[in-house]
Amino acid sequence: MCDTCGCNITPSNELPHAVEVLQGLLDANDHEAAHNREHFERHGVTAINLMSSPGAGKTSLLEATIDTLGNEFRIAVVEGDLETENDAERIRGKGATAIQISTGNACHLDAHMVHAALHDLDLDDIDLLFIENVGNLVCPASFDLGQKRNVALLSTPEGDDKPAKYPVMFRAADLVVISKSDLLEVLGDFDPDAAAGHVRNIANPAPVIEVSARNGAGMDVWTDWLRQQAGTRE
Amino acid sequence: MCDTCGCNITPSNELPHAVEVLQGLLDANDHEAAHNREHFERHGVTAINLMSSPGAGKTSLLEATIDTLGNEFRIAVVEGDLETENDAERIRGKGATAIQISTGNACHLDAHMVHAALHDLDLDDIDLLFIENVGNLVCPASFDLGQKRNVALLSTPEGDDKPAKYPVMFRAADLVVISKSDLLEVLGDFDPDAAAGHVRNIANPAPVIEVSARNGAGMDVWTDWLRQQAGTRE
Repeated sequence: MCDTCGCNITPSNELPHAVEVLQGLLDANDHEAAHNREHFERHGVTAINLMSSPGAGKTSLLEATIDTLGNEFRIAVVEGDLETENDAERIRGKGATAIQISTGNACHLDAHMVHAALHDLDLDDIDLLFIENVGNLVCPASFDLGQKRNVALLSTPEGDDKPAKYPVMFRAADLVVISKSDLLEVLGDFDPDAAAGHVRNIANPAPVIEVSARNGAGMDVWTDWLRQQAGTRE
Repeated sequence: MCDTCGCNITPSNELPHAVEVLQGLLDANDHEAAHNREHFERHGVTAINLMSSPGAGKTSLLEATIDTLGNEFRIAVVEGDLETENDAERIRGKGATAIQISTGNACHLDAHMVHAALHDLDLDDIDLLFIENVGNLVCPASFDLGQKRNVALLSTPEGDDKPAKYPVMFRAADLVVISKSDLLEVLGDFDPDAAAGHVRNIANPAPVIEVSARNGAGMDVWTDWLRQQAGTRE
């Protein structure tokens, strides 16, 4: 258990109570996440938790997704950001409902924040709910929100070694999306096979797909995966 | 105070002790950071804390910096990563000393980790010490390491809005480096003036400079800034 962020690091010697307090926070989060999950299942909502570094293209992917699937599914988005309502406004510009959560200085969404946002949504009117987490490749992975699936984006400019360097995030992913694939040729040093290899090395068999929200490449694979998640029950 | 990460978020109602425990952690960190700072000042070491999102180019900037300043300053690097020794090996490949800190699952370096690493360095042999923090645009900003200056990198593919969306990090920066400036033309949607405007909007007068470690553009401005920091005493 992390002494600062609820993750799994050796606790500080000076503060022996920190472990218990933070374990209590994670337990409370898991409890609330289970509650969110019941909400989603009762209303037939498929909830997808989208995680990545800042600027990896989560919002752009969602905009392109609404363009592609907007007539097929009723889509809503919960946006997590420290500050600004920019992302929610972009989603609303595509005609979908978006609720902005401003986390202040917090580095991730937690189940309580998502639960509060659900009170502003009519779940009976939603098929696919995307939860766009705070841009952070570490902390969000430790907090269950009640989602059905975790998706981790890895943008090509970040480098293909990131699954090895941030294993907690990429181990938690049910799908890894290599985003900004249109930059592959320009960059010249991102090897998608190497990225997938790093995901395998941390014992995650999840699919690794390449998508460009900018030129549409790979969007069919992404939307097929989404259709599959929305059509299956656990 | 954040109930999960030591930052400034409203504490959880369920766990009233979390605030005190985490304030205790930050206080302990500040105490250790002051101790590190004394070490640096006594030995004439200029310590620079380098922070950014994952894959923004911190290590590449350091490689180029060692190439440029390696004959002028004795440079060492403390590398913070959750896993892998990749970055330290890249720095050693340039002929500089590098100490790798593996944080496990922790989302940032703290002053205790840096202090432990200092025991593996001879500070009398170092002029410039770079501390490459964990790739994370949120948490590292809250933890003083004893550095003289904070540098925040913002890579062009991340988008020029990031200082508005991650204000804690960019408010803490003594210098903002727009990295991967060689991609500006390819991307077409990153406006350096807008990025600088967002830094001003959060009341930070720090210089904002553009650098490409790949083609060398702006490296002279960066290295001049470093010379200035190394040449001044607080």
